[in-house]
Amino acid sequence: MDSLEHIRNRLREFAAARDWDQFHSPKNLAMALIVEAAELVEHFQWLTEAQSAVLPPEKLAEVEQELADIQIYLIRLADKLHIDLEQAVTRKIELNEQKYPPEKSRGSAAKYAEFDDGD
Amino acid sequence: MDSLEHIRNRLREFAAARDWDQFHSPKNLAMALIVEAAELVEHFQWLTEAQSAVLPPEKLAEVEQELADIQIYLIRLADKLHIDLEQAVTRKIELNEQKYPPEKSRGSAAKYAEFDDGD
Amino acid sequence: MDSLEHIRNRLREFAAARDWDQFHSPKNLAMALIVEAAELVEHFQWLTEAQSAVLPPEKLAEVEQELADIQIYLIRLADKLHIDLEQAVTRKIELNEQKYPPEKSRGSAAKYAEFDDGD
Amino acid sequence: MDSLEHIRNRLREFAAARDWDQFHSPKNLAMALIVEAAELVEHFQWLTEAQSAVLPPEKLAEVEQELADIQIYLIRLADKLHIDLEQAVTRKIELNEQKYPPEKSRGSAAKYAEFDDGD
Repeated sequence: MDSLEHIRNRLREFAAARDWDQFHSPKNLAMALIVEAAELVEHFQWLTEAQSAVLPPEKLAEVEQELADIQIYLIRLADKLHIDLEQAVTRKIELNEQKYPPEKSRGSAAKYAEFDDGD
Repeated sequence: MDSLEHIRNRLREFAAARDWDQFHSPKNLAMALIVEAAELVEHFQWLTEAQSAVLPPEKLAEVEQELADIQIYLIRLADKLHIDLEQAVTRKIELNEQKYPPEKSRGSAAKYAEFDDGD
Repeated sequence: MDSLEHIRNRLREFAAARDWDQFHSPKNLAMALIVEAAELVEHFQWLTEAQSAVLPPEKLAEVEQELADIQIYLIRLADKLHIDLEQAVTRKIELNEQKYPPEKSRGSAAKYAEFDDGD
Repeated sequence: MDSLEHIRNRLREFAAARDWDQFHSPKNLAMALIVEAAELVEHFQWLTEAQSAVLPPEKLAEVEQELADIQIYLIRLADKLHIDLEQAVTRKIELNEQKYPPEKSRGSAAKYAEFDDGD
């Protein structure tokens, strides 16, 4: 069974067992997700880019939990909106491959160094 | 093959083909991720919670792309930090199950209505 | 003396006395600012809109500190970039007044309910 | 007249003239504020720290508008919560001065390089 689908189901059961669906509107889940994203950013805010790539073990363990929190809210939000997250990612990568042809994008300036299309 | 792993590999190739690894420090990827999270939040900021659950098709399609962007940067960041995202999620859910026993957390006040543990 | 200017000077002295200017690149200050903004959002994420308008005293005191943190980083960042914050605000309000004429914007749908122009 | 107070009054009139108070719950304003903060972060995400300190004129003009947007929502949110922003900042700086005595904080590690106290 697909991992994202498996996690989705487990999170559904988790929320149902606690009667938390009442709090999980997409609006609220989006807020919770960005709060977790900021807890991630906080770990990096005073580090140099080089330092951010070689985190000490205890900090890495904390960052791992932040990534998990973001993933959890992301799966939960996709579920609430009936969005197939894996399919969405596949489509977006295909869009990006068309938008950023390798020969034109290679090592290019900061404005191109994004996976997303600015939408 | 696992979906997260498959996407991770595809993103590696995408970045390598464009020589973009130079931009993808964990610090920068965390910034890119929160920017995408904010583009998600923007869709919901003036909606009521009820409205946020019944998006019109074109808005839903835009939200789908934002979720994809977040997922992409999340996988990319986990890859750069050598974090197994699926394992991290499984661990975090187990922590949450211990922290929020259903009988004590049922329908409880806002302060408990979180998957995360505030870390 | 203008309040923003007074605070700016006090923050300069604060950073200088601690030799913290080395950490206060605009990039890092922008990260710190969004982290504070997320701490603000966290207070509201599980509240209804109505609840968010009538915070209990202790929560209001915490929110007050978050607003102060955001204001502090905002002034600090403007200082580092040699931006006159008050002038910037005045200009932006004038732009918004032109962009959203009252007769066309009155009580209008969510897409107009912004001070900013989406830039 | 104090600049923050003057701007507050002007924003009150702006919202009233457009009947936008209905959208401006503290919850929604907090979301709008973090969205603006992210638009700020976006300008810096692929820049080095050094590059972020020497922005070209047109990028600086865009950053100036983002700072204005953040300031506008911050003043608006404080107004809705009946918080005196200037007083809040003064109090917070005093707290920080106690928390980070210069002799102990000088040039110290990243974990101290914050104005805020992590609350």
